[in-house]
Amino acid sequence: MSDTLDVLGIGNAIVDTLSRAGDDALVDLGLAKGGMALVDEARAAALYEKMGPTTVISGGSAANTMAGLASLGRRAGFVGKVKNDDAGREFSHDIRKAGVAFDTPAATDGAATARCLIFVTPDGQRTMNTFLGACQALAPEDIDEARVAAAKVLYMEGYLWDPPGAKQAFLKAAKISRAKGRKVALSLSDSFCVDRYRGEFLSLIRDRVVDIVFANESELHALYETADFDTALTALRGEKDLLGVVTRSEKGCVVASAESVVAAPAFPVESVVDTTGAGDLFAAGFLAGYTQGLPHERSAALGALAAAEIISHVGARPQKDLLQLARDNGLVA
Amino acid sequence: MSDTLDVLGIGNAIVDTLSRAGDDALVDLGLAKGGMALVDEARAAALYEKMGPTTVISGGSAANTMAGLASLGRRAGFVGKVKNDDAGREFSHDIRKAGVAFDTPAATDGAATARCLIFVTPDGQRTMNTFLGACQALAPEDIDEARVAAAKVLYMEGYLWDPPGAKQAFLKAAKISRAKGRKVALSLSDSFCVDRYRGEFLSLIRDRVVDIVFANESELHALYETADFDTALTALRGEKDLLGVVTRSEKGCVVASAESVVAAPAFPVESVVDTTGAGDLFAAGFLAGYTQGLPHERSAALGALAAAEIISHVGARPQKDLLQLARDNGLVA
Repeated sequence: MSDTLDVLGIGNAIVDTLSRAGDDALVDLGLAKGGMALVDEARAAALYEKMGPTTVISGGSAANTMAGLASLGRRAGFVGKVKNDDAGREFSHDIRKAGVAFDTPAATDGAATARCLIFVTPDGQRTMNTFLGACQALAPEDIDEARVAAAKVLYMEGYLWDPPGAKQAFLKAAKISRAKGRKVALSLSDSFCVDRYRGEFLSLIRDRVVDIVFANESELHALYETADFDTALTALRGEKDLLGVVTRSEKGCVVASAESVVAAPAFPVESVVDTTGAGDLFAAGFLAGYTQGLPHERSAALGALAAAEIISHVGARPQKDLLQLARDNGLVA
Repeated sequence: MSDTLDVLGIGNAIVDTLSRAGDDALVDLGLAKGGMALVDEARAAALYEKMGPTTVISGGSAANTMAGLASLGRRAGFVGKVKNDDAGREFSHDIRKAGVAFDTPAATDGAATARCLIFVTPDGQRTMNTFLGACQALAPEDIDEARVAAAKVLYMEGYLWDPPGAKQAFLKAAKISRAKGRKVALSLSDSFCVDRYRGEFLSLIRDRVVDIVFANESELHALYETADFDTALTALRGEKDLLGVVTRSEKGCVVASAESVVAAPAFPVESVVDTTGAGDLFAAGFLAGYTQGLPHERSAALGALAAAEIISHVGARPQKDLLQLARDNGLVA
């Protein structure tokens, strides 16, 4: 069909507020470094008061991935819920201008557009605090059957398990996608998120609701409740008909299935400024290759390149034309 | 007195919205590359619709300079008008968290907090479109006599001539400062701004309302209506009791008075990402040295360093600890 998308992403529609902070500030504020904590409006206001000068940029895990795919020249769409407030207009503007199809209706009442308060420590690591706000209004009615059916890959973030209605939207979309013989990809999002929903995520894999899983090492360890990478990888490879894509920061990544394991290196980065969005952009690069039928090594290299671009500046949306960058590095024609 | 500030800045309190754009987009939109144009709300909305994905960061010329001074360990204060809306709260948060004293009351009605829509072309050059909004409510009542009297240097941006009441606030503050034997500095802001107010700016210099003038080459050329740098510099040096600080991009800067001319080089930059705030941060570095009584060469080097930091990333507020950077480069102890 003519309206085919390469990837349709479903996720929390969030505007990021980023600030530099020392490790001591994380300790004082009781924040778990490198994680994502859910916060209510009062806690968000209190944390904002403790942040330094900020940079505000659209974010949201799956939304970042879709922006990356569009920058890589792939056709991407996004489903997520904002409110019709200033932040909601900013999110909507930014994702559309990134070249991503986005038409989920904004909520006209209820909670404000979601915000993520991100503390970036001197090592570039990010620690996130998310006020879900309007994301909690995402519901199965927001899933357009034709849109889902027309996408080669349906990509969903594990964070969708946090707002109650979003999970139903996820399951509805996955069912449509599967019925059309499309692929369904799930990002495990965060090790704390895996801890919250381990049983359900394993069921999604074992019931073959999802075909591809994206995880980093700590998420994979959390999924299989082990501290040993090889044990976790073996467990992952034991899942029937699953493609696992596991990122390992500067150690690169592993693309694993029952049949094969492909390891690929990270892309060198001069200085890590802010790791926010590293996993999201890796997924974007990998899926850009995957949806073109490139070999896993090449897809992984695209992922590594996109991740390298995102961690070299503040914020989780690409600042460079990633397709041009991929061409300059000889990864695509 | 114990509450002395090194520098008190007065300027337009603005939140910047930045986006990458091609030169062709500037042409299509009728924007003069490298300049600052004033726009009304409708034009701002139309331009926003044409922008790509954005980054939102507090800005404002003098406010950027004060944030730079604070980052360099100097005591800075700011006077400027926001509205009590989301952008106004963001501006207020960011400048205070940058370590700058700021207590100008926010407007409770009238126009929204000022916004500057900034198109950043691939060469790093920025083209600005400012909706002045609440800045137009700045008035002489916002000038606190004791605060002005306690600052070694009063720093004001030429852009203050645009909102009508702000100019009166500027003149009130300059009078207080002068009566206390302080120094008054003026940034010429922008060559179009100089074209609008050339006569008044020259009067400020010749009536000795200001002691120090910051300008870039094109502003200096506009001030003396010449295309020749040496002619302009000679004219500047002919002004009685004036210290002129002229930035020349990659050619460095010239610190000139009737008695002497000191030239200093630019600081090498690996890649120019976004020049927004380059002049503002140069002024911050120079004034950081000046207010400590450093020789002009050293002050100019601090200016060049701060400018180099700001043009290496998106946005006009420092992302690094400038004092540490200055120490790492052997410019301060």
